[in-house]
Amino acid sequence: MNAVTPTVTEGPLPASRKVYKSGTLHPDVRVPMREISVHPTSGEQPVTVYDSSGPYTDPNVKIDIAKGLNRHREAWLEAAGDVERYEGRHVKPEDNGFVTGDKLTPEFPVRNQPYRAKDGKAVTQLAYARAGIITPEMEFIAIRENLGRDAAREKLERDGESFGASIPDHVTPEFVRDEVARGRAVIPANINHPELEPMIIGRNFLVKINANIGNSAVTSSMEEEVEKMVWATRWGADNVMDLSTGRNIHNIREWIIRNSASPIGTVPIYQALEKVNGIAEDLTWEVYRDTLIEQAEQGVDYFTIHAGIRLHYVPLTVDRTTGIVSRGGSIMAKWCLHHHKESFLYEHFEDICDIMRAYDVTFSLGDGLRPGCIADANDAAQFAELETLGELTQIAWKKDCQVMIEGPGHVPMHKIKENMDKQLEACGEAPFYTLGPLTTDIAPGYDHITSGIGAAMIGWYGTAMLCYVTPKEHLGLPDRDDVKTGVITYKIAAHAADLAKGHPAAQVRDDALSRARFEFRWEDQFNLALDPETARDFHDQTLPKQAHKVAHFCSMCGPKFCSMRISHDIRAEAQKEGMEAMALKYREGGDLYMPVDETADPAE
Amino acid sequence: MNAVTPTVTEGPLPASRKVYKSGTLHPDVRVPMREISVHPTSGEQPVTVYDSSGPYTDPNVKIDIAKGLNRHREAWLEAAGDVERYEGRHVKPEDNGFVTGDKLTPEFPVRNQPYRAKDGKAVTQLAYARAGIITPEMEFIAIRENLGRDAAREKLERDGESFGASIPDHVTPEFVRDEVARGRAVIPANINHPELEPMIIGRNFLVKINANIGNSAVTSSMEEEVEKMVWATRWGADNVMDLSTGRNIHNIREWIIRNSASPIGTVPIYQALEKVNGIAEDLTWEVYRDTLIEQAEQGVDYFTIHAGIRLHYVPLTVDRTTGIVSRGGSIMAKWCLHHHKESFLYEHFEDICDIMRAYDVTFSLGDGLRPGCIADANDAAQFAELETLGELTQIAWKKDCQVMIEGPGHVPMHKIKENMDKQLEACGEAPFYTLGPLTTDIAPGYDHITSGIGAAMIGWYGTAMLCYVTPKEHLGLPDRDDVKTGVITYKIAAHAADLAKGHPAAQVRDDALSRARFEFRWEDQFNLALDPETARDFHDQTLPKQAHKVAHFCSMCGPKFCSMRISHDIRAEAQKEGMEAMALKYREGGDLYMPVDETADPAE
Repeated sequence: MNAVTPTVTEGPLPASRKVYKSGTLHPDVRVPMREISVHPTSGEQPVTVYDSSGPYTDPNVKIDIAKGLNRHREAWLEAAGDVERYEGRHVKPEDNGFVTGDKLTPEFPVRNQPYRAKDGKAVTQLAYARAGIITPEMEFIAIRENLGRDAAREKLERDGESFGASIPDHVTPEFVRDEVARGRAVIPANINHPELEPMIIGRNFLVKINANIGNSAVTSSMEEEVEKMVWATRWGADNVMDLSTGRNIHNIREWIIRNSASPIGTVPIYQALEKVNGIAEDLTWEVYRDTLIEQAEQGVDYFTIHAGIRLHYVPLTVDRTTGIVSRGGSIMAKWCLHHHKESFLYEHFEDICDIMRAYDVTFSLGDGLRPGCIADANDAAQFAELETLGELTQIAWKKDCQVMIEGPGHVPMHKIKENMDKQLEACGEAPFYTLGPLTTDIAPGYDHITSGIGAAMIGWYGTAMLCYVTPKEHLGLPDRDDVKTGVITYKIAAHAADLAKGHPAAQVRDDALSRARFEFRWEDQFNLALDPETARDFHDQTLPKQAHKVAHFCSMCGPKFCSMRISHDIRAEAQKEGMEAMALKYREGGDLYMPVDETADPAE
Repeated sequence: MNAVTPTVTEGPLPASRKVYKSGTLHPDVRVPMREISVHPTSGEQPVTVYDSSGPYTDPNVKIDIAKGLNRHREAWLEAAGDVERYEGRHVKPEDNGFVTGDKLTPEFPVRNQPYRAKDGKAVTQLAYARAGIITPEMEFIAIRENLGRDAAREKLERDGESFGASIPDHVTPEFVRDEVARGRAVIPANINHPELEPMIIGRNFLVKINANIGNSAVTSSMEEEVEKMVWATRWGADNVMDLSTGRNIHNIREWIIRNSASPIGTVPIYQALEKVNGIAEDLTWEVYRDTLIEQAEQGVDYFTIHAGIRLHYVPLTVDRTTGIVSRGGSIMAKWCLHHHKESFLYEHFEDICDIMRAYDVTFSLGDGLRPGCIADANDAAQFAELETLGELTQIAWKKDCQVMIEGPGHVPMHKIKENMDKQLEACGEAPFYTLGPLTTDIAPGYDHITSGIGAAMIGWYGTAMLCYVTPKEHLGLPDRDDVKTGVITYKIAAHAADLAKGHPAAQVRDDALSRARFEFRWEDQFNLALDPETARDFHDQTLPKQAHKVAHFCSMCGPKFCSMRISHDIRAEAQKEGMEAMALKYREGGDLYMPVDETADPAE
């Protein structure tokens, strides 16, 4: 254990307070939102924004990571009556990589018996949706997604190009149910993750982002790992994937899930591989199956499963510039190659569905053959696997399982739309969840940017969730600053996509910030920014004095040249004169080209 | 004067050497290129890339900023015989803001008499192109743009979507001439900037980027200002705009131009405004005209001229969220409003053309009404001005003047293409030169990214030059690191656009870097990156030891899980077995689904 115990980051963001909105169908549903206040001189209402940060930003909630978050979904599950508690699997030494003594991350202090579906019951959100049932999770999401739309409803002007998406003016619980029933959206919400604040992933909802974390050192303290999750969600990560390898995986994961209000995803093959000492060919269905149950009981909300790499696809990668770059993909390819057998994930796909269904773990069907460079984009290997992912989607849907599809990777701009279109077609509109894509290979150190470009575009075209890329991609492990940079970059991409899709009310925050900018309300401009701290810090580097934050000019032009100030003069003049009269006069002047006496009254 | 004398940055980038290629039509043309060597084990040739850095990266050139760069274009001008030297305008106290004594930046030590066109001669590249003359500048550019195409010619596979551009497989001097003659490309090359390494801006050429610099403090040393230009071009800026305001503008500009191998642009209205003590309404055509001649004699290669803001457009901005955000635009709007007269830039446009034509200063017709926020994008004001810019383009072309058109600003993704299409139509395919555009307003501190997204897209759609945005946009003045971040971000955007347009050989560098990545040639991966220093630094933060730079794994997965390593195993297996045989066997296996004996020889 690390002697220095870091504490998790708590407290509201600047000028922000947590508010909750209650459900109607389910009155115990309490949906958190972040309200950003603006200066009274603006005469404007606070701006309410989507809040992914969990209870950590609520000063009224006492955080104790050894107790975990409030298990509010348990009441919902019990009320539905379709689940049962059972003893569950016991932790085995291999679950934590055979670590003992001091090197073993302590178990989470509270043990809850896991839930599973009662015999014959389907407890997935998809099963409920198909049965016409609006779950508390669905109502929670409807309220959460509607942010700002009520306020904007009267003056709502729809704009944008959504490429065939069906974004409603207003999200009703029924709309959520219907989208889930059609398989066009997923709600990753394992019944063993009752601490969850439910969220939805689908192209008719706000574009979401995922941040990856994972233990890096041989010994990581559990506070450090919990803090990574808290930090990523504080800045806007909607989902977090725990990609830990190495030791203590089981115990660290428990600490993370018990303290996470966001869905947690994993790639179970990583832990399965640890259990067979890292030797891919030693993997068996039995080890993998045991790992799925282990993680499902802990409450992992979605699993990346690389079941689309089939034996005969492997040779398609041989002539690639960068071969197979997905870790899970390469493990399975090696297994197939070594045994010369079809992948056990593909062969046992229905068995996997049965496990997913019993806990409502959402499939994230992995793109093991995603391209690792521009040269390999949209090639035969990638699209062959995509077709198989489409087949598997149909099987999973038959089994009442929720499904999303993972996508590339490295793709030049002109091939991005083809990727999106093929995915929609091959996978029956199941939500697409892409990594980037990176639009060029030549900028290691800046791959949050090479990929942020691709992410914004594919989000616009219809991708439902964007997996972030940090500046350290391809080079090293992201530190705290890198995680923040990656998250903010992807919030930009997701928001740019929402704007371009014409998502109702997406522009509310842009407009509020732009008005603040125009009116020189510097504090409001910082507070409304995705990253208030950096905005303020950058301003202070040039104009540090407090007085400058109320100055009616900025550091770029200084007081004399300020274009915004001149615009205010123009507006004042127009108001004085009456805008219509002014416009008329100007149009006349424009048509006449009369030489005007330079000595004429300039106020005219 | 600052007591600390900074030196300008010199020396080659890692693993790089400057090479020169000579002209055929004009044998004294020597085109610089950067050759990046790769490790001998790769068996690959060095990668040659476009080199915007000027002589500063050539260790064989002795730099002395008090002497300036070699005036190699003088021989070309003299040979053409269309120019004459004359005494030129004398520096006036107001040119430097009436600074005296210690606060006055010293004059550049060498004074050369300026050139101008001989009576009756047109010396613009457009005039020569129309006359069927291939200038040395044109041949220089043909060689420069062709980089890598010769090597790639044999296996050239054209790919991409260029939205109606006409990018040739190979750039000939005649192609350059033809594009310039049609007005589809410009060569900013003032006859008084003989130090220039000519470059071209047009959508059938590589996408270019511009970096803005400018003196910030009341006293800036000339070395500091020269260093800003050197630093920006070192990292890839193709053009530099000097946006200085305040004092010492004239003398600092002289230092910059005499030391710049890249075109220098300015916004002359800034200096004109200084001459009338910052009072917009005191501006006159005479002051402005004098400023144009002053700067044309110094060698400024292109002028931003906001001649498209007509009197009757000003009221169109009154209901905007952020009014007029262009500095030049707001100055002219205020002038028009105050005098209630048509803009003197519009009224005197033909007079301006005569000046531009005498020195071959390229027009950059300013978009004074560009939107400053998402809400104002593609509005009536912006498009009204664009139509006027189209009219002015025709006038300038009649006068043999080169023209490019400036564009927005803040534009959500779904409105970017409309902007591009309207520009092409309204302005007869004159090159578009855009600022960003920023695709959302909510991320101050990250506007290099919000705008990098829009820049990549509009570059793909046909914009010929992208004006960079730094992380400090809207907040403060960029420092050295911000300038580098802005330049690299825009090099990414420009290169992503080149790839998507299907620019021949654009992918050569991506492929070389990806092969290096796949083969764990870490040093090559760093050296081929847009920013080798940052790539190396990020790698060293996780795996600092020198031994790791030859390791066959990376810091993300460690040695056990490396997907790339597994890919190598797969490739080795395939090569052993014969790829075709392997593929056949796999396809058969895939069709059969035969249960395979688990105890079978795994090597089979």
